[in-house]
Amino acid sequence: MTEAKGKKINILLFSGEYDKALVALILANTACSLGMEATVFCAFWGLCLLRDPEKISLEGKSDLEKLFTIMTPKGAEELPLSRMNLSGLGKIILKKMMADDETPDLHRFLQAARKKGVKFYGCKLSAETMGIQKEEFLPEVEIITAEDYLKNALDSDLRLFI
Amino acid sequence: MTEAKGKKINILLFSGEYDKALVALILANTACSLGMEATVFCAFWGLCLLRDPEKISLEGKSDLEKLFTIMTPKGAEELPLSRMNLSGLGKIILKKMMADDETPDLHRFLQAARKKGVKFYGCKLSAETMGIQKEEFLPEVEIITAEDYLKNALDSDLRLFI
Amino acid sequence: MTEAKGKKINILLFSGEYDKALVALILANTACSLGMEATVFCAFWGLCLLRDPEKISLEGKSDLEKLFTIMTPKGAEELPLSRMNLSGLGKIILKKMMADDETPDLHRFLQAARKKGVKFYGCKLSAETMGIQKEEFLPEVEIITAEDYLKNALDSDLRLFI
Repeated sequence: MTEAKGKKINILLFSGEYDKALVALILANTACSLGMEATVFCAFWGLCLLRDPEKISLEGKSDLEKLFTIMTPKGAEELPLSRMNLSGLGKIILKKMMADDETPDLHRFLQAARKKGVKFYGCKLSAETMGIQKEEFLPEVEIITAEDYLKNALDSDLRLFI
Repeated sequence: MTEAKGKKINILLFSGEYDKALVALILANTACSLGMEATVFCAFWGLCLLRDPEKISLEGKSDLEKLFTIMTPKGAEELPLSRMNLSGLGKIILKKMMADDETPDLHRFLQAARKKGVKFYGCKLSAETMGIQKEEFLPEVEIITAEDYLKNALDSDLRLFI
Repeated sequence: MTEAKGKKINILLFSGEYDKALVALILANTACSLGMEATVFCAFWGLCLLRDPEKISLEGKSDLEKLFTIMTPKGAEELPLSRMNLSGLGKIILKKMMADDETPDLHRFLQAARKKGVKFYGCKLSAETMGIQKEEFLPEVEIITAEDYLKNALDSDLRLFI
């Protein structure tokens, strides 16, 4: 069995869905607890996970970017489920079931990941297209290019696209 | 060209959709036929593939878990399509087209995978959250943690998140 | 840091969605610009990306295959968004935002990828099931089996399922 300690996991989080972000963070956090290094590169809808709900801004944005800002989920807890979302009912049920089992919610998993030192990156091209400014992300998020992602991924031991 | 024989494929099946489960099983079965070892770790919606339709139970479950048990697909053939499901019509068309080409359906791919020795695992946290009990899964399914998954994945040559 | 030049990326594109195809092509093109070899194996809905919109044919197809041909996206620009498609409105907004940033659209990314030498493969079983004939694909697309895909993937340095 390969020793996990010191190995690297690199997750490309493309999806902006509650359940998929949850699995990404659970894997990243578990990897950390095994002594691995974890990197989450958020592209496209995945960027919604990294938005700071208290720093959403419409300033300096085009009309379309404003519309997009308003229509897309603002931070972890606003993400919808990938299936059975049922206008939000499915998510309420899931969150209740998680609470019954004392499983933390997405926000808490995100806080844990930040604390454990999971490295969060945002995709430059996606952020520019969607008109999300650096200040709207959680403060430690670095914006990098697809080239940087590929180099980092090649340097990792386990790569997943979620 | 790398020799496939003896290599390991590890699939994390997160999705509970007919077409995605199909591609996971086709890859696992094809890997076996090339002499590879295949592991399918089902998490979240992916667990629905591993439920034994004849062993669904409501006993000892909370009200939410009962609701969830009733609302989610019970076994391979109940999974919906990821696109163009059209309230089930799309799936009927696809299955008819597969039958016309003498392609087996998902249930048959699952039976083949079990016979060929594909190793099926269920995610402990997902099963607990969704309230699915060990007895409701196909008998050979082992329930393992995210830690176990990561170790197994690090030990594999090809890892996919489906 | 691992040197990217000469390394291989292998993408299994299962999804037939505009945004997911976009990310697959951006990664493939970026990999080429780093001196990597890029392979995109399209299966299932992903095959829609490789259809030549000017060569769609109904000849020699069963009724179901005809229906499928008509109902599925014909080439890159007809693919829907994976989220917020809003009957096509979301895609119009996204494409406008991309144009505002002078980001090329999917069709242009596909043309660039073909020019840079990204290798495109179609999945044999998917093409047969969906009744898409070799002549309906872009001319350079080769149809290969799941076995060929697995061998190619094992021979690559970075593998993603999109």
